[in-house]
Amino acid sequence: MTRVGVVGATGYAGAELVRILSAHPDVELTVITSRQYSGEMFDSIYPSMTGSVKLTCEEFVPDHICEKADVIFMALPHKLPMELVPGLIKKGKKVIDLSADFRFRDVAKYEAYYQPHTASDILERSVYGLCEIYHEKIKKTSLIGNPGCYPTSVLLPLIPLLKNKLIDIHTIIADSKSGVSGAGRSLLLTTHFCEVNESLKAYKIAEHRHNPEMEEILSLESKKDIKISFIPHLVPMTRGMLSTIYADLLKGVSYEDIQNCLSSFYSGSPFIRICSEGMFPDTLHVRGTNYCDIGFKLDLRNNRLILISAIDNLVKGAAGQAVQNMNIMLGLNETNGLMNVPFPV
Amino acid sequence: MTRVGVVGATGYAGAELVRILSAHPDVELTVITSRQYSGEMFDSIYPSMTGSVKLTCEEFVPDHICEKADVIFMALPHKLPMELVPGLIKKGKKVIDLSADFRFRDVAKYEAYYQPHTASDILERSVYGLCEIYHEKIKKTSLIGNPGCYPTSVLLPLIPLLKNKLIDIHTIIADSKSGVSGAGRSLLLTTHFCEVNESLKAYKIAEHRHNPEMEEILSLESKKDIKISFIPHLVPMTRGMLSTIYADLLKGVSYEDIQNCLSSFYSGSPFIRICSEGMFPDTLHVRGTNYCDIGFKLDLRNNRLILISAIDNLVKGAAGQAVQNMNIMLGLNETNGLMNVPFPV
Amino acid sequence: MTRVGVVGATGYAGAELVRILSAHPDVELTVITSRQYSGEMFDSIYPSMTGSVKLTCEEFVPDHICEKADVIFMALPHKLPMELVPGLIKKGKKVIDLSADFRFRDVAKYEAYYQPHTASDILERSVYGLCEIYHEKIKKTSLIGNPGCYPTSVLLPLIPLLKNKLIDIHTIIADSKSGVSGAGRSLLLTTHFCEVNESLKAYKIAEHRHNPEMEEILSLESKKDIKISFIPHLVPMTRGMLSTIYADLLKGVSYEDIQNCLSSFYSGSPFIRICSEGMFPDTLHVRGTNYCDIGFKLDLRNNRLILISAIDNLVKGAAGQAVQNMNIMLGLNETNGLMNVPFPV
Amino acid sequence: MTRVGVVGATGYAGAELVRILSAHPDVELTVITSRQYSGEMFDSIYPSMTGSVKLTCEEFVPDHICEKADVIFMALPHKLPMELVPGLIKKGKKVIDLSADFRFRDVAKYEAYYQPHTASDILERSVYGLCEIYHEKIKKTSLIGNPGCYPTSVLLPLIPLLKNKLIDIHTIIADSKSGVSGAGRSLLLTTHFCEVNESLKAYKIAEHRHNPEMEEILSLESKKDIKISFIPHLVPMTRGMLSTIYADLLKGVSYEDIQNCLSSFYSGSPFIRICSEGMFPDTLHVRGTNYCDIGFKLDLRNNRLILISAIDNLVKGAAGQAVQNMNIMLGLNETNGLMNVPFPV
Repeated sequence: MTRVGVVGATGYAGAELVRILSAHPDVELTVITSRQYSGEMFDSIYPSMTGSVKLTCEEFVPDHICEKADVIFMALPHKLPMELVPGLIKKGKKVIDLSADFRFRDVAKYEAYYQPHTASDILERSVYGLCEIYHEKIKKTSLIGNPGCYPTSVLLPLIPLLKNKLIDIHTIIADSKSGVSGAGRSLLLTTHFCEVNESLKAYKIAEHRHNPEMEEILSLESKKDIKISFIPHLVPMTRGMLSTIYADLLKGVSYEDIQNCLSSFYSGSPFIRICSEGMFPDTLHVRGTNYCDIGFKLDLRNNRLILISAIDNLVKGAAGQAVQNMNIMLGLNETNGLMNVPFPV
Repeated sequence: MTRVGVVGATGYAGAELVRILSAHPDVELTVITSRQYSGEMFDSIYPSMTGSVKLTCEEFVPDHICEKADVIFMALPHKLPMELVPGLIKKGKKVIDLSADFRFRDVAKYEAYYQPHTASDILERSVYGLCEIYHEKIKKTSLIGNPGCYPTSVLLPLIPLLKNKLIDIHTIIADSKSGVSGAGRSLLLTTHFCEVNESLKAYKIAEHRHNPEMEEILSLESKKDIKISFIPHLVPMTRGMLSTIYADLLKGVSYEDIQNCLSSFYSGSPFIRICSEGMFPDTLHVRGTNYCDIGFKLDLRNNRLILISAIDNLVKGAAGQAVQNMNIMLGLNETNGLMNVPFPV
Repeated sequence: MTRVGVVGATGYAGAELVRILSAHPDVELTVITSRQYSGEMFDSIYPSMTGSVKLTCEEFVPDHICEKADVIFMALPHKLPMELVPGLIKKGKKVIDLSADFRFRDVAKYEAYYQPHTASDILERSVYGLCEIYHEKIKKTSLIGNPGCYPTSVLLPLIPLLKNKLIDIHTIIADSKSGVSGAGRSLLLTTHFCEVNESLKAYKIAEHRHNPEMEEILSLESKKDIKISFIPHLVPMTRGMLSTIYADLLKGVSYEDIQNCLSSFYSGSPFIRICSEGMFPDTLHVRGTNYCDIGFKLDLRNNRLILISAIDNLVKGAAGQAVQNMNIMLGLNETNGLMNVPFPV
Repeated sequence: MTRVGVVGATGYAGAELVRILSAHPDVELTVITSRQYSGEMFDSIYPSMTGSVKLTCEEFVPDHICEKADVIFMALPHKLPMELVPGLIKKGKKVIDLSADFRFRDVAKYEAYYQPHTASDILERSVYGLCEIYHEKIKKTSLIGNPGCYPTSVLLPLIPLLKNKLIDIHTIIADSKSGVSGAGRSLLLTTHFCEVNESLKAYKIAEHRHNPEMEEILSLESKKDIKISFIPHLVPMTRGMLSTIYADLLKGVSYEDIQNCLSSFYSGSPFIRICSEGMFPDTLHVRGTNYCDIGFKLDLRNNRLILISAIDNLVKGAAGQAVQNMNIMLGLNETNGLMNVPFPV
């Protein structure tokens, strides 16, 4: 049994990690931390887990964490992980960080959108944990920068098409829609029930921090300098993210070309479901699962491809993908602990 | 007092007409019809209106309707109005039809997306009731094809920019999101609460019937043959429609150009609110109102414009715009009966 | 034109007052205050009201308020009004306070549930603003303690039955359910969208501060010492409050007795709608209105009455009733400014 | 591996059975039927289950079902099971019926609320499948009448108190609130999104069919003739049921008496969670689980007990309890297949 810990266990992504890891057949969740709730039973914060999770939230004490866990999940706001992770890595721990701190190859880009990077030396050792794309690198690393929810939903459908040169790289637009849990458990006017209910709006239009994250990976994978327009929206639901992605088709590309590209690229990926013709993703169909559903349609009148992906932002968009990364790092079956049968509604 | 009637008063658009017309200072609602609820009190179908609306639903009997009303609103599914409207027009009535039957200039397009048109002779006399654009024609007509909800939300922000040649006509994409009331009161699996709640999905991708309706008007107004990609989505809320519209900027077009174009074009339009810089539309802000809020942002890295509009699909997208059309036809103040102060939440 | 002001205009009850007063035909809203947003345009806080409300939020400065307004609505948390209202009254202003500070006859009860009362001298001059019950007193007072939302929904159905001695006073239970806007605009974990959505729970069971408020009025009106069990619940919706009230029937009381009692008691009350037999209140039917819908059923097997009431907690439960109080105080028609036709959905 | 089948697999309760049974470690789901979708892949009806469930819906053919399955779940509307179950029992199958057809001991009561019973001979052999109460009988039977959702939520908290004579049997009121999935997947105006959203209402007040079901069991367990007032409400959420239950305390009964009674009665029941003092059930805490959470408070001023229970109506209120019954019938661990860790939100 590998012993695992969750740092920042009481935010939504952290709590989702606790949910998944508590039922994981190959690991034991031995330690969880929370600055705000230190000393309190986890199930007093999340009473749903009474009877399932019997841990007490602790302060983050590096030596203690390292003593109790072999794999450490960091579910903290960015900036903190930069300071804490180097010490953990030095002690030989495997670290999966859910913040943006270890996602970028290009420090300058990180610094342009976040703040000065104080651990750029270990940044090079980190792997961007988009499991279906970086499987081989993930196997060998001890530090994962777990992808953002929006990038996961945008990169998975786009990468195969870019690698196979099926779409015009200058025409990519990602119109993404997210449930409210993506904004975390912090108290904000934008997550107040009455401000969200019956509300639908775009925000951080073409200036969201996930934009450079997407572009860096798209550029690396396509070996081109790719810029996209990314527009996130907030939708009145708890979980779920839908990305509608637009791109012009390159000359002569047919429906079958797209279909074959996606199907063959993801033929060995248990969490990617390519919709059959005429069917399209729905956030309700992936709720509570680690699936990424991908569908598409050709708008031939405009020579345009419309790609649609759906994920649960807290699972494939955060905690689920983090556990999938752990599975790969530990040489386990990639799906272990992640294959709950989805709910009908 | 002009006497008005509503045919098909118990669907959501019909009931919204009843709501607005009941409180309208210049008209008297004298007759309402409903095939399904004929003989029943309107407030037994919509108990919210007990005390406000004291009418009984009747069968549609042309002579009776014509005797009781001078202006007739048709809130029926398409196909029926084609059959019923010619008789009403012949009797000298003013008709505002909320179906698609009298929206198209080009019969062939209507027939390609709907069915054979059986009243194409009077189709030429109809005016497309997009009030802010066709104000002068509306004044003089007796037959209005009231715009669809999606077209209203897409046309209003686009037309000024096209007329002023600020955007590339080959690059227009409209990613629209609608609340559930747009699907009407019919019982469908797609409007079942449990199938909608926590669900978000695209549907009729690039093949929705509102697509040719938009294109016809855009082409007429820009004097170009315009084709757009239109992708509607269903969102778990009752009212509200948000359209996020993408187009490449023509060379040299600046933020101020867009701002000036929209502001001056709509300077005399009481229901169009152009958001100030950094503010963007939210469906919650137009809920229950006849406003169309328009905001925009330039994605200069990609030389792309992102336009966003929000309307209440049942008001500006249906019943409210229909009443605005009536106001114009009758020479009344355009805002009469439509200026309720919006709710804070 | 009577000039009116709203102190605390940016909370939900305050903003709802701004909405109603802005469209009121007999008053002019001249001044609004907000500690948090002082100096900002009201429509920058509530963009829905852009074009309808052109006021700037000010600091509360007593002299300034008194100069600009004849009637002052206080929409502040309790405790503050106690300190501010005496000065306004002294200047001859009419004051309608939406907090609990001027609702109680018995200072001791207020102090047991809130804090020491620092303005008990003017408390005697205040009238409990339950319009349908205290109409005559309201006419003559200059200080209103506007009822709480829960008390409004519980008192209106119960008082006629108690006055007419139709129910057993020892058996009264009020099981109330409220939408989230009742908790205000403050940022709390219990109003975070993800904690409310798909959540239903009771809170402050038999210890809510509205309990003594209800009991004082019920006791006064029935001239008995009445104690009830009051259990509030939080429901995932923005607006609406439903109270299901249980009481044993006194011997021999029939369906008609209850029906007649309620109908005749409220025959002159334009905002009370008694449901016809077999129909029951629904929060959707009163959304955005000042109505209180009342329905009931006899459970004859258990000799028990089940009374149900529905209100919009922000309108009849707060701002609407406050304006109704103003109308009565000013000798206006009670319904002025409050008779918008309800929405179908 | 026991082979199991689900008859009526495409309604919500049926689909939830498919979800649970597909992941159950001790059984194999071999056959599912659906009249409406016969011949179609299950995952085309519920795309969420693509990859998890590979069965095709079949017509109900008794011989075929009996050949393929040893345990048969019936998830059909009442009346049909009466006709079909006798044949299955005759063939030696174990049957768990989710309709009302085999829940009643007293045929007359069933017939008063439903219709003539055509299989009353085998009714005597059926056991009411309230697992925590009838564990021993369930072990030995081959026919289960699986309890209704409301009765489950009301009986579990009440039975221990009645058996221990802690409450006054003449004063019991159950005010229950249910999510919409309890109304099934049928298309009804009352399950239309726009009629449910922002709506809260009582229905079938003191005349719901679950009322006699509760009373029969309460009477059997207390050996008294018990009548209760049961008032169901519909709440805008998909899953979840909260019952707030009122009863007068018998003389001298203390908080500890209630606490001890519930705790000791359910000490061996893995799915019953008694809330600690000051904590109360929330439907969000049991969403997607087989738990029944129970909390309570004493209203000492009124000598009244307020009991609150929360379940997921589709799990403990239907499919989960049915599988729990199967586990007991087969001598398996009661929790097998039912212990997924709950979601945080």
